[in-house]
Amino acid sequence: MIYELYYWPGIQGRGEFVRLTLEEAGAEYVDIALLPEAQGGGVPAMLKLLDDPGLARAPFAPPFLKAGRRLIGQTANILLFLGPRLALVPRDSGGRLWAHQLQLTLGDFVLEIHDTHHPIGGGLYYEAQKAAARRRSREFLAQRLPKFLGYFERVIECNPDSEKWLAAKQLTYVDLSMAQVIAGLHYAFPKASRKALRACPRLRALHDAVLSRPRIKRYVASGRRLAFNNDDIFRRYPELDG
Amino acid sequence: MIYELYYWPGIQGRGEFVRLTLEEAGAEYVDIALLPEAQGGGVPAMLKLLDDPGLARAPFAPPFLKAGRRLIGQTANILLFLGPRLALVPRDSGGRLWAHQLQLTLGDFVLEIHDTHHPIGGGLYYEAQKAAARRRSREFLAQRLPKFLGYFERVIECNPDSEKWLAAKQLTYVDLSMAQVIAGLHYAFPKASRKALRACPRLRALHDAVLSRPRIKRYVASGRRLAFNNDDIFRRYPELDG
Repeated sequence: MIYELYYWPGIQGRGEFVRLTLEEAGAEYVDIALLPEAQGGGVPAMLKLLDDPGLARAPFAPPFLKAGRRLIGQTANILLFLGPRLALVPRDSGGRLWAHQLQLTLGDFVLEIHDTHHPIGGGLYYEAQKAAARRRSREFLAQRLPKFLGYFERVIECNPDSEKWLAAKQLTYVDLSMAQVIAGLHYAFPKASRKALRACPRLRALHDAVLSRPRIKRYVASGRRLAFNNDDIFRRYPELDG
Repeated sequence: MIYELYYWPGIQGRGEFVRLTLEEAGAEYVDIALLPEAQGGGVPAMLKLLDDPGLARAPFAPPFLKAGRRLIGQTANILLFLGPRLALVPRDSGGRLWAHQLQLTLGDFVLEIHDTHHPIGGGLYYEAQKAAARRRSREFLAQRLPKFLGYFERVIECNPDSEKWLAAKQLTYVDLSMAQVIAGLHYAFPKASRKALRACPRLRALHDAVLSRPRIKRYVASGRRLAFNNDDIFRRYPELDG
């Protein structure tokens, strides 16, 4: 099975949570929007599916994944589907639900991180909502960042099957996503997140362990992993960093 | 099986998506936080689980559901679990993933509706973020509301198995949630949502069809369904209604 991933070019975005899972598993996939248009790729290939008025089971927004005849949208839903196929989640239904629950909570965290720079709306430039962004970031860094990080730190601490991973005895796709969020926080809020992560030794170790996985290292070294940048979910605006 | 639902008293909130599913199925459940403290209920019973430092698989926030020995958090995840057990989702894995994908998109919609009145942070009063709320609502009503409603209208239109439901030939838990969102929009934005729903005859019909289901009617008539109010996700602030 060669998976087809559809996501906006130029940013890691939510597509990166799917990519990290595919990369860690060594799965074959094509990043459709990164292919030349002449080869049937690019943004037009993605929009063709998104805007097809007659398509049953159309996704609302990227990322979405084509797996054979299935078309699957919503990041956490894609990982729910891929997890068992790529052996990156426990096999029992309780373990799968638990991993998914954590992934959904990470998704909530990611949206709150995004909204620090876009509290008024995604359709407006950052410059048009700077004052609100400053207030929202202050709230986020004071209340939400320690709450989310503290929660995930405790999840590792209370995992009866592992001292280093979130959801199971072995690494799962949730660990990959968690490491990506920590990397993104380091980029966006270098000061505030270093401070907040002081209380989270398990999360710091998880981040390092994920980034040391041979396949993840190879992926990063390949140049295929885009750099964080200020068109993305995680943005570095020094004025927002506490 | 008697399910135990844990959610904040006094509001419908995200708990209501779970309640509607349990009610439509005629499932037995106890709303723990609505029980008297003397009977082991109330908010303390809920916080006892949330704040238990040693609890493995602890939820991040309400609602969460106890089903035998399982403890399940995240609204969409609870419905993913309940759907097949209560026969409110198709049996095949493709149908279940599709229903879940729609539920996650509804969850995104609900969060954007919530953030119209709390764009800066949930920890601050509405009065402390009124100007930002006005701007966010304007953006939401102009861009996001028609986009989300248009998407779900198209989903019904493109459903090959039904002319009235979103995800399958029969009613699923997603239809119950969709009807709840439409009811909430009518409460929060009576002017703007009436206008936006003019272009969505299928969604209007779905809302009416759900509210006419015998068990849902009985639930509403029982007095157990709380009224919408301004401590909840959907809030009526006339100054935000377009």
